[in-house]
Amino acid sequence: MRYLDQEAIEDIAVGAAFLGTGGGGDPYIGKMMALSAIKEFGPVKMVAPEEVADEDFFLPSAMMGAPSVLIEKFPKGDEFVRVFEKLGRYLGVENVAGTFPMEAGGVNSMIPIVVAASLKIPLVDCDGMGRAFPELQMTTFNLGGVSAAPMAITDEKGNIGIMETISNKWTERLARVQTVEMGASSLVSLYPSTGRQLKDHGIHNIVTFSEKIGQVIRSNEADEATKLNNLLELINGTQLFEGKIIDVIRRLEGGFNFGEATIEGLNQDLGSETNVFFQNENLIAEKDGVPMAMTPDLICMVDLETLMPVTTEALKYGKRVRVIALPCDEKWRTEEGIATVGPRYFGYDLDYVPLEEMLAQGGEAHV
Amino acid sequence: MRYLDQEAIEDIAVGAAFLGTGGGGDPYIGKMMALSAIKEFGPVKMVAPEEVADEDFFLPSAMMGAPSVLIEKFPKGDEFVRVFEKLGRYLGVENVAGTFPMEAGGVNSMIPIVVAASLKIPLVDCDGMGRAFPELQMTTFNLGGVSAAPMAITDEKGNIGIMETISNKWTERLARVQTVEMGASSLVSLYPSTGRQLKDHGIHNIVTFSEKIGQVIRSNEADEATKLNNLLELINGTQLFEGKIIDVIRRLEGGFNFGEATIEGLNQDLGSETNVFFQNENLIAEKDGVPMAMTPDLICMVDLETLMPVTTEALKYGKRVRVIALPCDEKWRTEEGIATVGPRYFGYDLDYVPLEEMLAQGGEAHV
Repeated sequence: MRYLDQEAIEDIAVGAAFLGTGGGGDPYIGKMMALSAIKEFGPVKMVAPEEVADEDFFLPSAMMGAPSVLIEKFPKGDEFVRVFEKLGRYLGVENVAGTFPMEAGGVNSMIPIVVAASLKIPLVDCDGMGRAFPELQMTTFNLGGVSAAPMAITDEKGNIGIMETISNKWTERLARVQTVEMGASSLVSLYPSTGRQLKDHGIHNIVTFSEKIGQVIRSNEADEATKLNNLLELINGTQLFEGKIIDVIRRLEGGFNFGEATIEGLNQDLGSETNVFFQNENLIAEKDGVPMAMTPDLICMVDLETLMPVTTEALKYGKRVRVIALPCDEKWRTEEGIATVGPRYFGYDLDYVPLEEMLAQGGEAHV
Repeated sequence: MRYLDQEAIEDIAVGAAFLGTGGGGDPYIGKMMALSAIKEFGPVKMVAPEEVADEDFFLPSAMMGAPSVLIEKFPKGDEFVRVFEKLGRYLGVENVAGTFPMEAGGVNSMIPIVVAASLKIPLVDCDGMGRAFPELQMTTFNLGGVSAAPMAITDEKGNIGIMETISNKWTERLARVQTVEMGASSLVSLYPSTGRQLKDHGIHNIVTFSEKIGQVIRSNEADEATKLNNLLELINGTQLFEGKIIDVIRRLEGGFNFGEATIEGLNQDLGSETNVFFQNENLIAEKDGVPMAMTPDLICMVDLETLMPVTTEALKYGKRVRVIALPCDEKWRTEEGIATVGPRYFGYDLDYVPLEEMLAQGGEAHV
């Protein structure tokens, strides 16, 4: 158990945006919301999943929809608490024992901090993805058989709803169409979970891991190479490519930001091109047409010099970036995990090959 | 107070389908559902709005979406009761005192009879339209300031949701996208109302009126002209046209059945053409390009010989029909009523002219 101060929050926002693999929201917006909440309500206590009681009851709070929209449709701030409290009341739970993030991301790591500060409840150091994914059923809780519903959904205007569904896929479908109608983004609370379920199905220590990543990225280390090495060592990751963005194609569809970034090589990769395909989150990285890394492994873009994470909505012509990959949590590397978030689910005609294997084979994918 | 028997139900289904102006569902499907419910649970008690206590609490139950879909996606039967009970529980009402139809229509007049029979509660003889309309905010309750939300929505698969919204228009928007996702039709309970609100904002005696219309249409009167005159006299209506359908254009869009029927004149109208434009319900009737009747006045199509109502999904080439119009309830003929359900709301560049005025002017509309 420990308290999160301003420094910790700034580190978490940056580290979570890195693990957000392009999605999960902008860390600057996220950080500002969380800092303003702890300034108003006091610091937030964070507990490890091992520290919570099995029978206690926890609810997450998150943003759903296209991250690009949030920049223009800034939350009023009361939506997170409203949707969280609505679900608690609907479930008839007197005392919700704490909250937790559903995914990594610059905003989605911070919303639970706002809720925890406002309601003076602890934040649990776990999430349901260990990264970010675009759809509601893409969680390790889902793989563990936890229901996403009952789920609450609200918007910044004050509309609010509850859903109970026959499957987590149906929760996604019905929440998605409402999110689109609400203006392509909404605030949600879902996957109501016991302490036991957090222990069994959550990705543990993800907030602390985000914080450590943020510490490295935000460190004063002057030497670029040393800083990069520190980051890669911490995350057990690899730099796939460095270059300059020469094209970004995007479309907002069904409440998602779909797109593709083309990066032209610098220095030793001169003449090479890397393409990163995304749906809110980066899903596939190809070099000269050959897959190098694929979902559910993490594909993160960072600024070439500062290593600050670059979200998909911030991709633009001329930006110089590094493409970094790291292995996903082992929970995703099961048959059901790959069926839920592997390349074929997203429409790519590729069998999943774990990142380590791909690198050992020199980047050749099985098509 | 009286009980509805099989005869009454058959008359109501037919008369309500007539008042449904093409929408509100097929009377045969509706009748079968209601007859099966009274066979299983016993007869249904019907009370006049004047007979209910002001402070008692009532909920309607209805089908939402494209009527054409219902024919293929036949309800299991428990959806109506489930959505009704869900809303009651959500509102914390111990005893819901009764139910009522939200609109006329072959199915939407019968669903409340199924609910009343199943739960042994009375049916109140009123509705919120005095006809049928395609959208949720198109009710006299809305004009009276009653909120459509909290609202419950479900499908035949078992998904169920609750909405609380900032306006009845938002209830429509959020319910519509869920209805589309559920397969273009859903079951809903909304406009929770007190007895006082039913008295003040409901259209009184609509079930009895439907029954009387059904009695005329289903009577054994052998002479066609006499039967037609009896019907027109009862409803204070006019026959606008008689002819053969020579073209039907339709599209399913946004959970609505949109379309246009072209009818070629018979006998004295030889050479003339009438076009009826619909969105679930018939909205505009034009003869040789000149408007003859327009929403919110009722435009009803019936079989040329039997006078049985023809719903928009049953329109087909070669069918011989009469187009009959009658004035809407006075509640619709206010500025707010016309803004809510007048021709301009539906995208027609026409000022509303009451049917009586239109007929007096010989069918000339102000464009």
